Amino acid sequence: MTDTQMFEALRGVTTATLTTVLLKKGLRKVWMTGTRPLAPNQPRVVGRAFTMRFIPAREDVATPASWSSPRSTRAAIEEMPAGCIAVIDAMGAKEAGVYGDILSARMAKRGVAALVTDGVVRDAKSVLATGLPVWCDGAAAPPSVASLHFVGWQEPVGCGGVGVFPDDIIVADDDGAVVIPAAIAAEVTEIAVEQERLEGWIMSEVDRDVPLPGLYPPNDETRARYERDKAAK
Amino acid sequence: MTDTQMFEALRGVTTATLTTVLLKKGLRKVWMTGTRPLAPNQPRVVGRAFTMRFIPAREDVATPASWSSPRSTRAAIEEMPAGCIAVIDAMGAKEAGVYGDILSARMAKRGVAALVTDGVVRDAKSVLATGLPVWCDGAAAPPSVASLHFVGWQEPVGCGGVGVFPDDIIVADDDGAVVIPAAIAAEVTEIAVEQERLEGWIMSEVDRDVPLPGLYPPNDETRARYERDKAAK
Amino acid sequence: MTDTQMFEALRGVTTATLTTVLLKKGLRKVWMTGTRPLAPNQPRVVGRAFTMRFIPAREDVATPASWSSPRSTRAAIEEMPAGCIAVIDAMGAKEAGVYGDILSARMAKRGVAALVTDGVVRDAKSVLATGLPVWCDGAAAPPSVASLHFVGWQEPVGCGGVGVFPDDIIVADDDGAVVIPAAIAAEVTEIAVEQERLEGWIMSEVDRDVPLPGLYPPNDETRARYERDKAAK
Amino acid sequence: MTDTQMFEALRGVTTATLTTVLLKKGLRKVWMTGTRPLAPNQPRVVGRAFTMRFIPAREDVATPASWSSPRSTRAAIEEMPAGCIAVIDAMGAKEAGVYGDILSARMAKRGVAALVTDGVVRDAKSVLATGLPVWCDGAAAPPSVASLHFVGWQEPVGCGGVGVFPDDIIVADDDGAVVIPAAIAAEVTEIAVEQERLEGWIMSEVDRDVPLPGLYPPNDETRARYERDKAAK
Amino acid sequence: MTDTQMFEALRGVTTATLTTVLLKKGLRKVWMTGTRPLAPNQPRVVGRAFTMRFIPAREDVATPASWSSPRSTRAAIEEMPAGCIAVIDAMGAKEAGVYGDILSARMAKRGVAALVTDGVVRDAKSVLATGLPVWCDGAAAPPSVASLHFVGWQEPVGCGGVGVFPDDIIVADDDGAVVIPAAIAAEVTEIAVEQERLEGWIMSEVDRDVPLPGLYPPNDETRARYERDKAAK
Amino acid sequence: MTDTQMFEALRGVTTATLTTVLLKKGLRKVWMTGTRPLAPNQPRVVGRAFTMRFIPAREDVATPASWSSPRSTRAAIEEMPAGCIAVIDAMGAKEAGVYGDILSARMAKRGVAALVTDGVVRDAKSVLATGLPVWCDGAAAPPSVASLHFVGWQEPVGCGGVGVFPDDIIVADDDGAVVIPAAIAAEVTEIAVEQERLEGWIMSEVDRDVPLPGLYPPNDETRARYERDKAAK
Repeated sequence: MTDTQMFEALRGVTTATLTTVLLKKGLRKVWMTGTRPLAPNQPRVVGRAFTMRFIPAREDVATPASWSSPRSTRAAIEEMPAGCIAVIDAMGAKEAGVYGDILSARMAKRGVAALVTDGVVRDAKSVLATGLPVWCDGAAAPPSVASLHFVGWQEPVGCGGVGVFPDDIIVADDDGAVVIPAAIAAEVTEIAVEQERLEGWIMSEVDRDVPLPGLYPPNDETRARYERDKAAK
Repeated sequence: MTDTQMFEALRGVTTATLTTVLLKKGLRKVWMTGTRPLAPNQPRVVGRAFTMRFIPAREDVATPASWSSPRSTRAAIEEMPAGCIAVIDAMGAKEAGVYGDILSARMAKRGVAALVTDGVVRDAKSVLATGLPVWCDGAAAPPSVASLHFVGWQEPVGCGGVGVFPDDIIVADDDGAVVIPAAIAAEVTEIAVEQERLEGWIMSEVDRDVPLPGLYPPNDETRARYERDKAAK
Repeated sequence: MTDTQMFEALRGVTTATLTTVLLKKGLRKVWMTGTRPLAPNQPRVVGRAFTMRFIPAREDVATPASWSSPRSTRAAIEEMPAGCIAVIDAMGAKEAGVYGDILSARMAKRGVAALVTDGVVRDAKSVLATGLPVWCDGAAAPPSVASLHFVGWQEPVGCGGVGVFPDDIIVADDDGAVVIPAAIAAEVTEIAVEQERLEGWIMSEVDRDVPLPGLYPPNDETRARYERDKAAK
Repeated sequence: MTDTQMFEALRGVTTATLTTVLLKKGLRKVWMTGTRPLAPNQPRVVGRAFTMRFIPAREDVATPASWSSPRSTRAAIEEMPAGCIAVIDAMGAKEAGVYGDILSARMAKRGVAALVTDGVVRDAKSVLATGLPVWCDGAAAPPSVASLHFVGWQEPVGCGGVGVFPDDIIVADDDGAVVIPAAIAAEVTEIAVEQERLEGWIMSEVDRDVPLPGLYPPNDETRARYERDKAAK
Repeated sequence: MTDTQMFEALRGVTTATLTTVLLKKGLRKVWMTGTRPLAPNQPRVVGRAFTMRFIPAREDVATPASWSSPRSTRAAIEEMPAGCIAVIDAMGAKEAGVYGDILSARMAKRGVAALVTDGVVRDAKSVLATGLPVWCDGAAAPPSVASLHFVGWQEPVGCGGVGVFPDDIIVADDDGAVVIPAAIAAEVTEIAVEQERLEGWIMSEVDRDVPLPGLYPPNDETRARYERDKAAK
Repeated sequence: MTDTQMFEALRGVTTATLTTVLLKKGLRKVWMTGTRPLAPNQPRVVGRAFTMRFIPAREDVATPASWSSPRSTRAAIEEMPAGCIAVIDAMGAKEAGVYGDILSARMAKRGVAALVTDGVVRDAKSVLATGLPVWCDGAAAPPSVASLHFVGWQEPVGCGGVGVFPDDIIVADDDGAVVIPAAIAAEVTEIAVEQERLEGWIMSEVDRDVPLPGLYPPNDETRARYERDKAAK
């Protein structure tokens, strides 16, 4: 399965379904706390993770001058491939924005698919105006250096209580952002697509006033009925 | 006072007024923290509590297989009477949704008036599409079993820091959900309706530029004026 | 610079820009956590702080009767000058509203520019209907006396983790509320207006696909280019 | 009852008993969260509250220079009467100590009975060496100005979620610190002394293997037995 | 394996070892947050869980009068079998003690092995004097009714983020309290005893200055050496 | 100044004094929250930071098998130079221990000066028995893999809200652990030694009953007196 095929398929699957599939494979910690859509009705996005990492600010290093350092958020942005999703480990900090409108505008220009962080953004209104979809935990006016110091990119990071490695698959929709480990992404996608179809059929059964026990999760009789209906299509 | 009359009356009273009336009767802990309306402009709902209880998940019992157990959320839903409000004790858990769209759809089918929880829902967009009004603390993609295990219904529970007993009266509006102990519900309703009328009159006085001291709370002179205006109607 | 001139200028500057300017002057704690706009699209407001202070409720003093005390929120409101911004230290309490619609209506009548608090409001829908812009941390039904006791006004207070003194300058927009110490307000305003212009120009450069390193923050070459463009206007 | 008599009586009563008595009078919020004894085996202390108030530090005012201001913690200490208990509202801050050894030594010199705060102290070992008993929420190395700014004394304050007014009665023991409103202190003391005697008798009954139901709380038969035993002494 | 044999064996195994064994069987949530030993040097205790459940207090039901109800903590204590460990779901409440000295004394009399709670106790010093070993999250003076209402015993509960069912095996030592699901307790005990022996041997190797890689966890060579040493004993 | 000289000098200076000196140089965030001494009366330790970094566990990578990986905590320990202080970024996690007794024993063997973490340790009693001084936020039974995954060493990390870089100077005593940026360590040491001497003299003045205003901080007269006394020694 190519990335293009996988991403196309995943754009039709909810993060709710993905977490169910991942749980059945033994993964309970895949949904990133605090990654809410910044705007209503952002489309579901899918992409490979481009990770970024902050540590707590220390007044001797977290200065506006650090913005010009070769290890800056600016330099990181210029390394981002088109279609990636920037996953920013802000240690859940709420009192300073990881990014404002200028950096977001540059990311949008470079074709970055989305920004996902357990922190917050600043100048949120202008960030949205750049067209970059954002999942974060709200807004704050202060610049990142007020409490965060950037230390590097494409390292393993934590985001919203979840471990994320460079190039893992990220899916984000109205319920937040989920990571799919790269090694099992293709397999998870296939199961999830089928699970999504089954759940759609169950919803139509609920619509017909079928009670839940036996229907969801489906018992053998229900499953047989589903397979019949699927074949009939 | 029948339930129908009481509920009709309560639909005209804000939860803000109800908490004031309950405070005057010595009850300070009646508003459930974290019970925000999931969608804007949900109508005020009133109903008797149908309680549900979760404990923390343990990997040996909180499995997808538990969804088929006779003590499952599915079984509970089939016990809910029309018009009730499901009050779910999720211990304030934010990292897994108590419910998704399929269970919500079934509740809507059964005429459940609303879902109130100190936890979150999953697949929030589809939950709203079922028409079930929801008060909760946000959304999360993972299924309940990722961190919660369902243990029973119609027991005393805690929800958002408030004790709720089966068949207490629940009222929810834009400010969140409030419990009225069943034993004092009729009396509280009567006082609240009158309080609401008084506050409406005070607002009209503020509109006439009357200063607050003496007006709110009303001193004897103000109260006499109010009684005159009320009689004049 | 008169207050009128300063406020006019500040209405054109984001709180994001202000916090950057204040950080460069050594102030990192100026943005008040929890001060989110209650409604979308509230205009940016600017005004001098009128501070109010609550302590935790104690059942012997925090009673509805206390609402008639000479040291009440009602009395405080009658002291507010037109154009001020009420800054309420609610110690971040989320379980009781500092204000409801009647007090908000009176403040609107008196020409108060906005209400800013690290707590919450009650009867939020009716508060908004009064036309008073509000920055707060959500809504709760219970009255303030359920957990808060009002003790005075125009004292130094803490709001959202920030120290605020009477008559400091407050600016609030979509990212929340920021304090500018009165003593440096004029100087900060001048720098911020210029910073805002520079950032607008940088955004137009990003639009032209200029990469970030060297552009933001601007190196000498960029800065020269900016000065040329500015002069050319 | 003189202060001396009251304090003598209260030194024989646990804070556990006092909170039970206060609860029966309708006061549930009297125990200050975070006020743990800094050292094991500190004696129970009783005294009138001398309140002190901090707000969040702002870099322009919370400086080492502020230590010399007439409104400083130093000036406050010189106002403390012998036998008082300093109650410090530190807003629960854990990242900077309200006091270190020098200020504690001066308080000990002046005969202050104890220091109670919802914050922490610095140089904790040396503070203890001064002999001043301390109830607080731990230790931190940084000076108060790193995150706190002192604004005044003998004002109403909040400490550990409890409202405290100047000259209220404070009692602190191994379970933490409790406030008794000045107006009801004599009455509470009398009831508490009798309650303490009753509970001592109940403990001796438990020792004799009497089951709890009917014993604690005592039913009529038990209470009669207690009265007999008390009279017999 | 009888309970007596199992408990004897488990008294020789640390909770650290038990959590490692349980993790290898897929159980990550078995250690109860907040269950610290109340006194230093309490012996390791083992017993079957006797569960108790609190919900948030509501002023109309959580009254001193409720202490005489047939569904009271007093009644529950009289049901406790000798050797059990009381596991109290206090929802992590820190502002009121679940128990004081009288109830603890009665439990000690009845031969209860220990008290484990995610809440706190009151009159902590006297509780310890009863000889009952306690694992909890500290002390608070107020009685349970100040914020908790007791609703029942021997139900499934949550304690410190862990699901506990009646008659599960509880082990508590200096690191806190751990639950072993009843169904797998015998098997876990056997593996844990062997694991403990292995780790003791590894410690003696570290003492001989053997580096960690290959030693811990042991590779094949190390494991063979261990088996030889074990056989040689 | 050699490391040996600097460390010798710093062993005579409290972390309280160091944070005051660092604050005067503009550094407010240098004390690591949660780094409490695991045992009473641990000596003050000084050394260069050897950093270690964890991210949240993900079930596919955080397994007992990972303990044998070349990028494991075991491998890191074998890289530690004698005299260093291991600074472990555990993201403040309280539900799993970063280390147990075996790893601690190996560190003690290698001459590591101390372990500092914002997380917790497991098998705390046995850890202490190895002789390794530990500063941490308590104890928990579960192994690190239950919620943490180790990703590397000698990278910039966050610990207790403070940014720490490899080879920074760490000082830890009863008040917790403090970082001194390597670049300014010599200068800070010199100022701190003198500050410590001054504060000792001030304590002796307090002992002589000198009031605080003018004494602490010292005014010109006091400072002259101090210089005279110092010269006289």
